[in-house]
Amino acid sequence: MPPPSGIELQPGAQGLDFANYFVSYGYLYHQKDMLQDRGRMTAYRNAILQNASCFEGKVVLDVGAGSGVLSIWAAMAGAKRVYAVEATSMAQHARRLVQQNGVQDVVVVLEGYMEAQELPEKVDLIVSEWMGYFLLREAMYDSVLAARDKWLKPGGAMYPSHAFLRMAPLCSALYGSRLAEFDEEVSQWGEFSSWMLDGNGINVNGLTGFFAREQQEYLLQSAQWCQLRQSEVIGDEFSVSEFDLHTTTTKELASFSTSFRSVISEDALLNAFGGWFDTDFNGSAAEPAPKPVTLTTAPESATHWAQQVFLVHPPLLVEVGDTLEGIVKVARQKLNHRLLWVQLTLTHSRAGVGQVGPERTLNFRID
Amino acid sequence: MPPPSGIELQPGAQGLDFANYFVSYGYLYHQKDMLQDRGRMTAYRNAILQNASCFEGKVVLDVGAGSGVLSIWAAMAGAKRVYAVEATSMAQHARRLVQQNGVQDVVVVLEGYMEAQELPEKVDLIVSEWMGYFLLREAMYDSVLAARDKWLKPGGAMYPSHAFLRMAPLCSALYGSRLAEFDEEVSQWGEFSSWMLDGNGINVNGLTGFFAREQQEYLLQSAQWCQLRQSEVIGDEFSVSEFDLHTTTTKELASFSTSFRSVISEDALLNAFGGWFDTDFNGSAAEPAPKPVTLTTAPESATHWAQQVFLVHPPLLVEVGDTLEGIVKVARQKLNHRLLWVQLTLTHSRAGVGQVGPERTLNFRID
Ligand SMILES: Nc1ncnc2c1ncn2[C@@H]1O[C@H](CSCC[C@H](N)C(=O)O)[C@@H](O)[C@H]1O
Ligand SMILES: Nc1ncnc2c1ncn2[C@@H]1O[C@H](CSCC[C@H](N)C(=O)O)[C@@H](O)[C@H]1O
Repeated sequence: MPPPSGIELQPGAQGLDFANYFVSYGYLYHQKDMLQDRGRMTAYRNAILQNASCFEGKVVLDVGAGSGVLSIWAAMAGAKRVYAVEATSMAQHARRLVQQNGVQDVVVVLEGYMEAQELPEKVDLIVSEWMGYFLLREAMYDSVLAARDKWLKPGGAMYPSHAFLRMAPLCSALYGSRLAEFDEEVSQWGEFSSWMLDGNGINVNGLTGFFAREQQEYLLQSAQWCQLRQSEVIGDEFSVSEFDLHTTTTKELASFSTSFRSVISEDALLNAFGGWFDTDFNGSAAEPAPKPVTLTTAPESATHWAQQVFLVHPPLLVEVGDTLEGIVKVARQKLNHRLLWVQLTLTHSRAGVGQVGPERTLNFRID
Repeated sequence: MPPPSGIELQPGAQGLDFANYFVSYGYLYHQKDMLQDRGRMTAYRNAILQNASCFEGKVVLDVGAGSGVLSIWAAMAGAKRVYAVEATSMAQHARRLVQQNGVQDVVVVLEGYMEAQELPEKVDLIVSEWMGYFLLREAMYDSVLAARDKWLKPGGAMYPSHAFLRMAPLCSALYGSRLAEFDEEVSQWGEFSSWMLDGNGINVNGLTGFFAREQQEYLLQSAQWCQLRQSEVIGDEFSVSEFDLHTTTTKELASFSTSFRSVISEDALLNAFGGWFDTDFNGSAAEPAPKPVTLTTAPESATHWAQQVFLVHPPLLVEVGDTLEGIVKVARQKLNHRLLWVQLTLTHSRAGVGQVGPERTLNFRID
């Protein structure tokens, strides 16, 4: 979608906006998509309104306020003051909603890039919906952690407080359809190639391998958005990483690796891994939430995040009880730090047999 | 499509690349789309190979060489030297094709932004495929005209030499479908609005008008890519502008307005205007092409550009012989100068009646 006519980026935000990151957030259309996500809404609403005692009389910062919904709930929960910071001109709609919902004496909407804001005071609590695909895509946690370090009082609370990134082996329907697409593209290149020579006198055969590699990267080595069914999961889910938002640093999130182990639960063709996240709202150590809330995006949870699928090509034949062990590496892409690289190094072993096949290294982009 | 892993922008290009303009050109997939466009290919191939006498022994510059196809043809036509300048890493594939087609002694591929190149000599002829939707979208003519002013010898030739931007009144099938989409979005907002109040305690009614305006801008006031049939054209085509590439300036192209007049040829509902372009390859005044070529993108011509459709909402009832008169303004968008604004000011008159209805002003974005 094109930028709405009104959108103007704050100076300073532009350099960080290589992928036109902010543009879509300037649309009500896109904010509405998020506001219609019932899993997301229920979790944040309960986290705030069912833990109103943690908000009462507090100074709250909403990082990336969008339409202002979290700020309005914080005000309803009894906050004394809420700073709602939003980079795009959506801030102007947030201001309208704040007014229309009668919380204008509590909520102050600030239009601008979080990192460039000066607040008149430190805050007791930061609330933010910053999660992207595979938790870390969009790298908005950068802004949330910077806001925490600059504006949160010592001992203050983060909502959400914890985040968990998980994966599991899959037998996914996506595999067959992407592979068919890949084959189709490669065969179309063949026809194109003949036409270039016969019709245009130009030999493009030397590019066939490059074209196939480009399509492979795009169709088979880029993570796919997908609504997984539980039946596609064929082994233990494993943890890729866990963060306490009160203490984690940008550096830890920007690049890390973890070893994993997963036991296969059925005889199947392992043709993918799935990835998703959960976030918990537990409050702070000093002031735990009386009603902790979890927002899950696991298979069948039906949020707008759905899950990410990483294809394993060629696939592996696995049996109940087989073990997968290896290392997952997650890092930002160099050219656009809001996007990710994921690398899986993998060995497959079977009781009584030992290692099955060679170690595999799989590389993926999350674009 | 995401950027291919290899793509790195030249320093300097980045500031001009707000819309990630260059990213897609780094893909063979996208270059293939252009190479498969038979109308485009036939016109350029004939313009070069059927006018080989104009290329023989000449020094040629190919601005935005992509896969290098035009440079290879120029070499086949007998050019002494061809400089193929390409901003993206596609230049590396161009170098491979040049080699594989045996013209490496003639064609020098230079990877980098045209404006940042130093050539060892001035050139006799510039060839370039720079046209975007509605001719001017992408604003690549900037780079072509800058190259002309800096590198073309006095009296040198531009291929293409002339460009024509045209419009005509339509009765288009697109109108009904876009209007239905608009109505659907507005009615969905209504349901969303109720759910926000009942389920989340937040009143979003105040944003209804803003949402409708946003959807209107997107669905009804943005030009649409469309393959028009001749039967959708219901009146005289008119000229929006004509350029001689040898003399036109960036300033003239960046913003202009023209008056127009179109006589209606059938009783119909005028619900849109169509826009398209032709380019001519006539050679220079000093050395006219012996076989001039025209590349047309008019309705039914089936190039990848197709046509642009600008909806007229609400539509106008017109009769055979009615006259439309007015002014078309074309300008770059402020935020992204590669995109366009189009404004039509319009009066409708009928013999024996005079002016029918008030003057209308219609605004469109080409995104
Ligand atoms: N550094 C930053 N400063 C200010 N706003 C930011 C930001 N990074 C992201 N944002 C904004 O954060 C929002 C994230 S989407 C969440 C919107 C809203 N809080 C809700 O829950 O519905 C977007 O509107 C985006 O424009
Ligand atoms: N200022 C500039 N400098 C160098 N290359 C440019 C440029 N502006 C656009 N380009 C390149 O110009 C190409 C236009 S598409 C045409 C490609 C090729 N000449 C063909 O006819 O098939 C793209 O590959 C784009 O990357």
